[in-house]
Parts: sequence; C-alpha cells; structure tokens
Amino acid sequence: MFNLTQFMHAAADLTPSATATIFGDRHHSWEQFRDRVARLAASMRALGVKPDSRVAILALNSDRYTEYYLACWYAGAAVVPMNIRWTVAENAYSLNDSQAEVLFVDAAFTPMLAEIRQSANALKHVIYMDDDAVPDGMLGYEDLIANARPCEDAERGGEDLAGLYYTGGTTGFPKGVMLAHRAIWYNNLMVTKLFGLTAQSRYLHAAPMFHLADGAASGGVTAIGGTHIHIPMFDVDALIDTIDTHQVTHVLLVPTMINMLMQKEDLDVSRLASLTRILYGASPMPEGLMIDVMKRLPDVQFVQAYGQTELAPLATVLEGQFHVLEGPQAGKIRSAGRAVPGTEIKIVDEAGQGVARGEVGEIIARGPGTMLGYWNLDEQTASTLIDGWVHTGDGGYLDDDGFVFIADRMKDMIVTGGENVFSAEVESAISKHPAVADVAVVGIPDEKWGEAVHAIIVPREGASVTTEEIIAHCKDHIANYKWPRSSELRHEPLPLSGAGKVLKRDLRAPFWEGKERQVN
Amino acid sequence: MFNLTQFMHAAADLTPSATATIFGDRHHSWEQFRDRVARLAASMRALGVKPDSRVAILALNSDRYTEYYLACWYAGAAVVPMNIRWTVAENAYSLNDSQAEVLFVDAAFTPMLAEIRQSANALKHVIYMDDDAVPDGMLGYEDLIANARPCEDAERGGEDLAGLYYTGGTTGFPKGVMLAHRAIWYNNLMVTKLFGLTAQSRYLHAAPMFHLADGAASGGVTAIGGTHIHIPMFDVDALIDTIDTHQVTHVLLVPTMINMLMQKEDLDVSRLASLTRILYGASPMPEGLMIDVMKRLPDVQFVQAYGQTELAPLATVLEGQFHVLEGPQAGKIRSAGRAVPGTEIKIVDEAGQGVARGEVGEIIARGPGTMLGYWNLDEQTASTLIDGWVHTGDGGYLDDDGFVFIADRMKDMIVTGGENVFSAEVESAISKHPAVADVAVVGIPDEKWGEAVHAIIVPREGASVTTEEIIAHCKDHIANYKWPRSSELRHEPLPLSGAGKVLKRDLRAPFWEGKERQVN
Repeated sequence: MFNLTQFMHAAADLTPSATATIFGDRHHSWEQFRDRVARLAASMRALGVKPDSRVAILALNSDRYTEYYLACWYAGAAVVPMNIRWTVAENAYSLNDSQAEVLFVDAAFTPMLAEIRQSANALKHVIYMDDDAVPDGMLGYEDLIANARPCEDAERGGEDLAGLYYTGGTTGFPKGVMLAHRAIWYNNLMVTKLFGLTAQSRYLHAAPMFHLADGAASGGVTAIGGTHIHIPMFDVDALIDTIDTHQVTHVLLVPTMINMLMQKEDLDVSRLASLTRILYGASPMPEGLMIDVMKRLPDVQFVQAYGQTELAPLATVLEGQFHVLEGPQAGKIRSAGRAVPGTEIKIVDEAGQGVARGEVGEIIARGPGTMLGYWNLDEQTASTLIDGWVHTGDGGYLDDDGFVFIADRMKDMIVTGGENVFSAEVESAISKHPAVADVAVVGIPDEKWGEAVHAIIVPREGASVTTEEIIAHCKDHIANYKWPRSSELRHEPLPLSGAGKVLKRDLRAPFWEGKERQVN
Repeated sequence: MFNLTQFMHAAADLTPSATATIFGDRHHSWEQFRDRVARLAASMRALGVKPDSRVAILALNSDRYTEYYLACWYAGAAVVPMNIRWTVAENAYSLNDSQAEVLFVDAAFTPMLAEIRQSANALKHVIYMDDDAVPDGMLGYEDLIANARPCEDAERGGEDLAGLYYTGGTTGFPKGVMLAHRAIWYNNLMVTKLFGLTAQSRYLHAAPMFHLADGAASGGVTAIGGTHIHIPMFDVDALIDTIDTHQVTHVLLVPTMINMLMQKEDLDVSRLASLTRILYGASPMPEGLMIDVMKRLPDVQFVQAYGQTELAPLATVLEGQFHVLEGPQAGKIRSAGRAVPGTEIKIVDEAGQGVARGEVGEIIARGPGTMLGYWNLDEQTASTLIDGWVHTGDGGYLDDDGFVFIADRMKDMIVTGGENVFSAEVESAISKHPAVADVAVVGIPDEKWGEAVHAIIVPREGASVTTEEIIAHCKDHIANYKWPRSSELRHEPLPLSGAGKVLKRDLRAPFWEGKERQVN
C-alpha cells in the first residue's frame, strides 16, 4: 500500500502500448518501460542491492533517469538523487553520508567521478548511463537490462524509506531528507489533481530531475499513465523545440526559466501552442514577470506550487483560476495559494503559538508528505519536525480565505531600522520596471539602520537604470522604508542553485565579510 | 496520518467563517461546525464511547448526519450508518452484529425503534436528532452539544477502523464491511480530483447519506473546505428548489433519480443553472437516459463512478470529457471509465488468471481503498479479498485504452442457449425507445434455452408498447440472441434498494418460484 511502483503497474496493465517515455528518438511503451525496470532492478539485486540499500544518481535528465527511480523502488532500495550543481566535496559527502552502494552516472559527470570516488568508501558499483563505450570500472546500463531476467517487485510502500533527498547545501553540507513511500505517493496523487494531469498529458522534464519539484510531477504523470518527455537540461531553444516536436502539454519551470523564455528574442509563441499548463515554484515569481508571461501565453493555465523537500514537497498550491489581474480574485496571484487537501498549514510565532489572521509568522505544515526526519541528524530533525509539524523556516501570513502569502525566507528577511522588509516584495516591485530583466534584493550592513535594502539588477539588453530611477519607480508600489538605498547593475545572470533558486548567500557575502549577520 | 478529522481541522483553521453546512434555514461555519463536533464527541465519550466503539445512525439526511460522521471519528469511534430501507429485522441484526453502544436516530425512524431495541442487546444510548420534544429513553442531540466542553481529537487514522458499512442486504443478512481511515481518506481525496471539487463548491446531499457513494463525495467536500447542503431525502421538487435556492454546484444522483428529474413535467432547466457537475453511479445508466440528460443539461459535466463498498467505494471513474456522442472518444460513454489513480484493476477468469484484452471476466481491484475485511465473517472475507485484491463479482472487460466496460453483475447475467447476455446492454438498447420511461431486464426460466431474456418496462405516461415493438426496436441495436423473448408493462416504479439500485432479485422472484437458478 502507498507503493510507488504501483503507479507503473497500473499504467502497464491498463495501457501497455501507450507511450511511457520519450528521449530524443527513443520511445518506450508502458509495457516496455516496466520490463526494462524489472530487469534493471534484477541486475541491482544481483549487485547486492537489498531493501533499504541506498542507490545514488548523478546525471542530467533522460528517460533512464525516470527508469532509475522506478527500478530502485522495484528492487526495494531508496533513491539518492544528487544535485547536479554540487562540487566534488558535496558529492563525496552525500555518497558517504548515505552510504550508497551503487551510483548511476552519465557522461556529463564522469570526469569528476574519479575524484569523488576516492572518498566514497561505501560505493561498490558505478553504472554508466550513456550509450558510448562504458568507461573502465563501470557497468553498462543497457547491458544490465539486456542480461537480466525480470525479478519480482519488492512491493515496498507505506513508511518504508523511498529516498534520501539532500537539501540545504547552500549553507554547510547538505542534509538528507528521509521520505517514505507514502509521502511521495501522496504528493504524486495530489499533483494529478492540482496540475490537471490526464492520461493524455505529455509532460516535459525540463527542470532538473534530481529535484523533488520534478519528482512530484513525474510520479503524477506515471500515476495517470501519461507520457514523460525529457531534455538533458534546461535550455530555451531545446525547450521550445521539444514542446513543438512532441506536443508537450505540461511543463514545470522555475521563475528564472520562465524569465529566460520571455526574454528570448523573436520568441514565436505559436511553437508553444500545445502547452496547456505551466507549473512554477521553487522561488518567488516576480509579479512583473508573471504579468508578462500571462499576457504572452494567454491559453496556458499557470499553477504555482509552494513547499519544500521536507514536505515531499507540496504545502500549498495556487490554481489556474486565481491567476487573474482583475475581478474579485485579483489579489490572490500574489499568494502561494491554499493548503493542498490533506495537508494542514498554520502560521506560528517563535513560541510555536498561532498568530492572528493577517500577521506574519513562521509557516508550519503537516500531512502525509511530512518527512521521516533528517538522515543521521537527530538534532536538526528535532528542531524542524516538532509534534509532527514541519517548521519551514519561511515567513508568511494567511488571508481570510485561507490563502498563504509568503513574506520571505526567514533568513532572507531584511531588518532595517526595526522594520521587517521582505525581499520578495521589493523584487516584485522592481521587476515591473521596463529596464529590469532580473533582480535580487538583499540586506547589507548599515551602521545606522542595522541593515539596508540593496538591489542587484540585471538590466534588459541595451537598457540601463540608476538607483534614483529605481527608487522613483518604487514610490508608486511600496512604502518608503522598503525602497532600496543602493543598487548595482550586474551584466551576468544571477547565481542559481541546482534547483533554480537565486543564491542570495553568495550575493550577500561580499558585503558581510568579517561581519556577523543576525538571522531570526 | 490519513485521519478523517484532519480535513475538518484544515477547513476550520484556514477558512473558519466559510459555510460548512446548510439544512433548511440552518447554516454553520467551519469554525462552528468543528466546535459542535468537538462537543458532541465529548458527550459521546462521557456516554462511554471509546476508541473502536461502534456508533450507529438511522436517519434521513441532514447537517447533523454530517456532524455525526465527524464526531464519531473525533471521539475515536467507528461509524455504522444504517440503510434507511431496512426492515426491523435487518436493523436489529446490524445493531447486534456491530455491537453498537450508541444509536443516533431521527423522527422518521423513531416509530420502529421500540421493536428494534428489543433485540439490540449492546445498545446503551439513543440520541434523538430532531428538534421537537425528545422521546422518553432518549438523549437530545442539541442538549449533548450545549452541555459539553470540546474534548481533544482522538486523532485516529491509518489502519484504524473508521466504520462498518453494511452491504449486500439484498441476499441474506447484510455484511459489515470494515473500512480503515486510510481507505475513506484516499477516496475522499480522489473525489476532489475526479469530481472537480474546489473550495467554492456547494455540494447537495440528495442521495442517502448512509451510503458510501455520498460518503466519498462528502469527505471530498470537507477536504477542500466546500459547503455541504442537505435535503432529507430525494424528491424531485426538493432537489430543484434546493439547487436553485442554494446555488448548488455539485450533486450525486443515481440513474433512477436522474430519470425522475428528466420525467418531471414542465421541468424548468433554468432553475438548475448553478449546477456544474453531476456524479452518477451505483447502477448502470441506460444510454437513452444519458443522451437525454446530456442534451437537456448541456452545461453540466457528467462524471460516472463505479465501485463498491468493499473499495470504499471507487474503482473506476469516467470523467466529463468522455461524455460525448461523437468524435474519437464517442464509444467511451458506454464504459465505466478508467481505474482511479492509485488503484489497480484486472480482469480475471474463474481461476484468477488474467484474460485477454477485450474478453469478459471478473473485475478485481486493489488499492488504498481496499476493505480490511467483513466484520466477523472470515470465510466471506477469504473468498472476496484474495491476496489483497477485492473480487467485485461484476463481469467486465478492458478496451485498448484501459477503459472498463461493465458487462453485468455476475449474478444478473442471463445465460440463454449457452450465450451470455448482459442485462445492462439490453436495458440500454430498450431505453432508447421513445415509449420507455424505465426498464429492467432479467433472466426467467425457459425449458429450451435454460433462461430467456425478459423485459419489465415502465412506459412513459400515456404511452404503451408491445413486446413485438420492443423486439423490432432492438433489431437496430443488439444481436438477436439478446432480444427479449417476452415483456411486461409495469405501471409503478421499479423496486429500488436504499442505495437506488433496481432490486432484480425481487423482479425475478415470481418467475423462479420453486426453481433453482444457476449463478456463476
């Protein structure tokens, strides 16, 4: 029960000849997909993988990444999807921490493998996922499938460990979030509702597949017997070409990706005509960008998801009907939507007590998506998972209709002259200026005010803008204590985490050298 | 986790002032609803109700029926909703079998209570649900709420027993289907997707609330924070008035109710303008009726559900997009749709082996909705729940797209001259004849063919029709061995079970007196 392979069995039993996966010219039906998964799982078992073994992956997106997930669960193992932006040290750390015995790797990450392997003491086997010659010391992916006979499904489920999803690598070494089958299963099913998936859906894996945002959507596609389409990694041209060629209906994009799409010169939106829904999230969507993309893709329904790995990952969802700029629902677009059915949300103060409606506090959540805890980190588990509630570390408030408005990551909140300024709100205001292509707002040290609001602005090509112009623009949108006191122009993209979040820590760092920043 | 009160807590926490229930002029918000539930639960505890106690109800629909469900779960008890069509003997049997300690009853069933009570040995307390004087020997519903302080939620969930749902009373005494919290929880969540519920939905309890069809939809309404609207029992005029007055958006109706609505003289469909979706099921929908209602309510989306109590209850769903008479999906309307995501469906032969695609066999299903078993009936449990699969006793086949076509209840299938005739198919054909208001087809003894196809026809008002005319009509629709060999006109409604299913056993009985019918 609450078993992640069950979705695949249902698809393979009921619609065996429907298309399961597409990667370039490679197509597999659900019947072929299950057969391949069952063989790959058998090979893993032969390599010593047992129930609860950890099996890691470090690879770009492909149909084989989708097979990897199902094959691990079929064999009874827990997945360990590794962040493609990690350094050698972080990769080695997560392999050691998880004690993964098997690693799947593709050509993109083979060069760094020798170094990683030196310190990954539990690692016994490396499986090479690409079609060219298998490097020395590795096993060939297709060989393992060709040379095995399908084994029986381990039928793990419920509270059994489905995976270790490393998170928080942006501050110190990453923590392994332990997620049970039922947590991911629940998220997968809710995605079928919230993202409007049907058996006819054709979902494009454009966001990195190691991340649970894609993982939740991906399991939803399997649960409904839809089609998985893959590109190795996000790239505007590959995105447009693949949507057009394979008539993609659903895609998950982080705001930065949507921004890159909107800024493509001579974007031919008719090539995106098959798209019915875009799921976005992982970081705040600047309002200027949201308005722009809604205007240019009027036939697409937008769905915003908010959550975190510790919730596998959904907490709230803002559905298509609330993406409007006029009428009684007009203000909801600035919210993160409402609690996913089956999940409870509360806003609490530092003592863990509920705050009054409309007041900002910490967002906490509990439901079937709640993590089991952090792997080998009892202390961090105890401070994050309190009486079954995940403390998100995000600030927010509830409106009268139960919509959650995210104020900020608690640690991204700027405290200036005793006032709390939420960087997301300032970014939304600045993003509406016509010369601004992208913006990040951070707190920098200020002798008088403690912190001052500082804006880092990526101008549109050929445009320029001054701090004075930005402040003049902000006057129409936000209170004066929120206006930036300084700004800088940046002519390269903002630094992003593997999941597409702006790395504010990196942007803040030069200003805080030798100083201690107070964080709630 | 997988706790049925959690849905209520989420609604009360996030949208405390939104309307939870409406019954006549009585309205309660979600905050009031939870407060009432918590007090009622406290009173039950004071009466001796403990975790796993059974608490029964015998009542018509009302807002208090919705409160009853939540209050039982809040107190930790299992619900025992009793069929409003039962005889005294069946009522007494289910009370004794379940060993229910507390019974909720309303004015409609008070007259039969004295007799029931004589043989209900475990029953300690009866709670009277109506507002007039509380009869001797009973406790007043509102008194219990007024005189208690809210208690703590028992927070039962997962595999804990949520209820005994009696079924199969049409053949021998009813069996108590044991359903865990997770089974109903799963169905509730899936209904939010499949029935298209949102927080703005206004759901009308028109079908009897003891039945799980309504129960699944009802929990979905709570899970999404929608509004429950109640009428005591189905009645065409009350249905139309309530839809109009309270702007009902969603309603569940069995085919017989839809038929009664369509046959109302001078039906003013503008009074149904708020309706966006009708969920139907519980018995086969004759195609003629389906075509008629789709034509007359073109703005309503129809959703068909197929299942049984042992699955809590959903197995398959046919969504709105497949309710079309033309185009590539045209034939799907004759199916029961596809497996609910998370539930597996197979078609097997008598040995339990899968049959070839398109062949008729028994429909079996498994998933989170699967029952724990039959209460105190190990033998029946063992023959119905095999390796975790519920054997439905229904015949059906799968098409290439994974749609399930229900052939018939195995026991309603007619075997004539070695051919299997599915009564539902013959009924669908006959229902298209303009003189036919309703029809049931049964097998009657035939010396030559074993069984012969017999049609019992309720003609439209003022219309008449002969067997010859029916056969002539059938020639255009079905093969000749399926044509009825005899027919009769019936000038009263077909006999129905409490759940709205035609009681074919009763229709067949006079023909089979003193004879043994062979059933698969």
